[in-house]
Amino acid sequence: MNVIKPSLPKGTRDFLPEQMVRRQFVMETVRTIFERYGYQPLETPSIEKLDVLSGKYGEEGEQLIFKVLKRGTGLEELLRGRKEFTATQYQDLVEEALRYDLTVPLSRVVAMHEAEIVLPFKRYQIQPVWRADRPQRGRYREFYQCDVDAVGSESMLADAEIIAIVYQVLSTLGFKKFTIRLNNRKILNGILKHGGIASENGNSVFVAIDKLDKMGLDGVKAELADHGLTNAEINSIFSIFEISGSTDAVLAELSKYFNGNDELLSGAEELKQIIQNLDSLGVNRDALRLDLCLARGLGYYTGPIHESVVEEPKMGSLSGGGRYDRLIGMFLGRDIPATGVAFGIERIIDVMTELSMFGDSWAAAKALVTLFDANTVDASLRFTQELRKAGVKAEHFFELSKLKKQFAYADKKRIPNVIIIGPDELAEGKVTLKIMSTGEQIRLENAEALKFLLKN
Amino acid sequence: MNVIKPSLPKGTRDFLPEQMVRRQFVMETVRTIFERYGYQPLETPSIEKLDVLSGKYGEEGEQLIFKVLKRGTGLEELLRGRKEFTATQYQDLVEEALRYDLTVPLSRVVAMHEAEIVLPFKRYQIQPVWRADRPQRGRYREFYQCDVDAVGSESMLADAEIIAIVYQVLSTLGFKKFTIRLNNRKILNGILKHGGIASENGNSVFVAIDKLDKMGLDGVKAELADHGLTNAEINSIFSIFEISGSTDAVLAELSKYFNGNDELLSGAEELKQIIQNLDSLGVNRDALRLDLCLARGLGYYTGPIHESVVEEPKMGSLSGGGRYDRLIGMFLGRDIPATGVAFGIERIIDVMTELSMFGDSWAAAKALVTLFDANTVDASLRFTQELRKAGVKAEHFFELSKLKKQFAYADKKRIPNVIIIGPDELAEGKVTLKIMSTGEQIRLENAEALKFLLKN
Repeated sequence: MNVIKPSLPKGTRDFLPEQMVRRQFVMETVRTIFERYGYQPLETPSIEKLDVLSGKYGEEGEQLIFKVLKRGTGLEELLRGRKEFTATQYQDLVEEALRYDLTVPLSRVVAMHEAEIVLPFKRYQIQPVWRADRPQRGRYREFYQCDVDAVGSESMLADAEIIAIVYQVLSTLGFKKFTIRLNNRKILNGILKHGGIASENGNSVFVAIDKLDKMGLDGVKAELADHGLTNAEINSIFSIFEISGSTDAVLAELSKYFNGNDELLSGAEELKQIIQNLDSLGVNRDALRLDLCLARGLGYYTGPIHESVVEEPKMGSLSGGGRYDRLIGMFLGRDIPATGVAFGIERIIDVMTELSMFGDSWAAAKALVTLFDANTVDASLRFTQELRKAGVKAEHFFELSKLKKQFAYADKKRIPNVIIIGPDELAEGKVTLKIMSTGEQIRLENAEALKFLLKN
Repeated sequence: MNVIKPSLPKGTRDFLPEQMVRRQFVMETVRTIFERYGYQPLETPSIEKLDVLSGKYGEEGEQLIFKVLKRGTGLEELLRGRKEFTATQYQDLVEEALRYDLTVPLSRVVAMHEAEIVLPFKRYQIQPVWRADRPQRGRYREFYQCDVDAVGSESMLADAEIIAIVYQVLSTLGFKKFTIRLNNRKILNGILKHGGIASENGNSVFVAIDKLDKMGLDGVKAELADHGLTNAEINSIFSIFEISGSTDAVLAELSKYFNGNDELLSGAEELKQIIQNLDSLGVNRDALRLDLCLARGLGYYTGPIHESVVEEPKMGSLSGGGRYDRLIGMFLGRDIPATGVAFGIERIIDVMTELSMFGDSWAAAKALVTLFDANTVDASLRFTQELRKAGVKAEHFFELSKLKKQFAYADKKRIPNVIIIGPDELAEGKVTLKIMSTGEQIRLENAEALKFLLKN
């Protein structure tokens, strides 16, 4: 036999049932919450036109886009080694690419389907994305993203709702100690202004600030000095960056810098309103932290930004999002305001696994109905169907094997109960129920056994 | 603004909420049934190594595989038009491709994870696949497949279970008139033997037979004559192909040809056992038809084969499957028996849409809580959270707009109930419920309104 030793592409994974059950649990939980808040599902194609994706993810992101080859005779000939190929011909073959995130496709959808969509468009989307990144622990080339966005409202109520969803998702999944860090792009711009730093240098300031956790205060200051900022400038912006305390305290301290700095004022007002709305929505203030150093990498944010983190294990953020009022305009020609969040669903699953937050119940079925002999197969099959009809996950064995082998199968598949229908049971019109954990065997009427399995 | 007029790659689709709600309903229904039968979820990467996919789908299929480009400096340079590229260098860049179906990945998974898997491995998989086919009505380049397979058992009980699942899925989705056509590759081989036709010509016979619906009896016979079959051979095989009637009648008639034809005998015995098991599993015999002309295109089937069809609308099969005892061996080096079915989930959704089998209830929420003025926002938000907590899908409006505008939004989103909390309601500690279909407005205690919304 001509055997291909199979392997997987780098950075990709198979999800066997045990993992899938966990993944589905998390995805079902978030889906239920999103729908509870009136968000509706959207799916977009895995393949997008390259020009839709280009120019959205920065130079670094651009290089990570997976390109897909067009079907074409030229390609087939080329693959057969018949001729050389010029770059122009080649470029013609590469017009499509795999989805890189879910925000750009959402923006494209809003622009293309504007007439069919009711604003505010509240949608969620749970689909894989692909990045040709160097694979490493916790970083894959194919991974699910899970986004929830509200498109078409400038109201801070939309931002507050998104943050309330983050709070509810993490609480519902069982996270005890998490923090939602809040900031506002307008505040960041206001800080630049306060420091007298030209806005074209803003990005290098934000990139440096983002590394505060890793590099410490001195490290970041040194990096900023390397970028040509003067000590006066650095001290000036850090007078604001270093404000900390309760949300009220931070806002009070920040207000001292409002004079003549509209962006700072407006950014702080927005956060104040969001926090007030979060009170109404029942979000515990202890879970919120105004963190004026939070920058979030993506260039398209224009207003409030946020991310959620757990203290243990150290693993980066579990969600990240914010307001992006100008991205959709890139497709539509006029701006539509939007705000949303992306859950790092893969990381959430990793953290929950590490913190043993999943139960152990990935059993395929509640009951295995054994096959005793040829004469009882009919009765076994009929009883299995009876169980399924009543909503009990059940399977019957496929072969007329020794009962011991059938028990071993139930054991390996973690099926907690086994049903035996032999000649005696058949004659009595009953079944024997064996509880795998104790080994106990009880003879029961069909209806009693069904009742037991519905409960246990 | 530099606007990109966005478009979709050929043969791909966006699924807006209205469609998504239908798709999720169908997928949830099949998922529930699969799990009721003890099948567990599996997911595999969208990208597979090209050598895993090659040689599995026939020459025609091979050309439809979407290739993915490897990340590499060479590629980037090439795209920038810097140099020419030889076919060998090029081929190095194309080592991976998009998933073409779910059966080959399953076989790869069994071979790679044999130690972690308990046989029989009963898995289902619902994921998109990609084919660079010419798009046309009902044929897309990206579409979901939905497979359920049992790996590791030679028992006809496994085949019967798969067919019982087909029956239950179609019944549960609401199909009234459907037929599951059954045949066996062994019978087809037996027929060839009966006609004295060399097995290497078998495939052209099966291809021709598959067109019986389209070309009619004379057309198929003419095509077979073109392939060099003699009239005697054609008449000989058609003496069996043309057997029809009830399952019992077909089996009785077929038995006249068993003498010296083991494949025919064994194929018929298998079908007989499957039908008997389907009786035990409660599958209505009227839904079954032994159709000795059923061939199913794919070369890898080795035993029983089946497909399900509806009479109206004319749309090809809704599911197709069978036993493939030798595919996994291509990866593992030794055979593991397997049987399964693929649901044409996209086609099922199309047919259900055409037959108006979906309800009209894709409303985003059960209730819209309006915002009356700044003083009542807090109460409105709190009541919305109360509803969500109790399990009612609810949303509040984002802006302080005129109530008329808020009602119009509820109307457009098909939200059936609206809640108003103005100063009067606030003073009384009540809410006003407006039923959108009748325009009726009722003032209620919070708890009463909640009770109403839980019910309606």
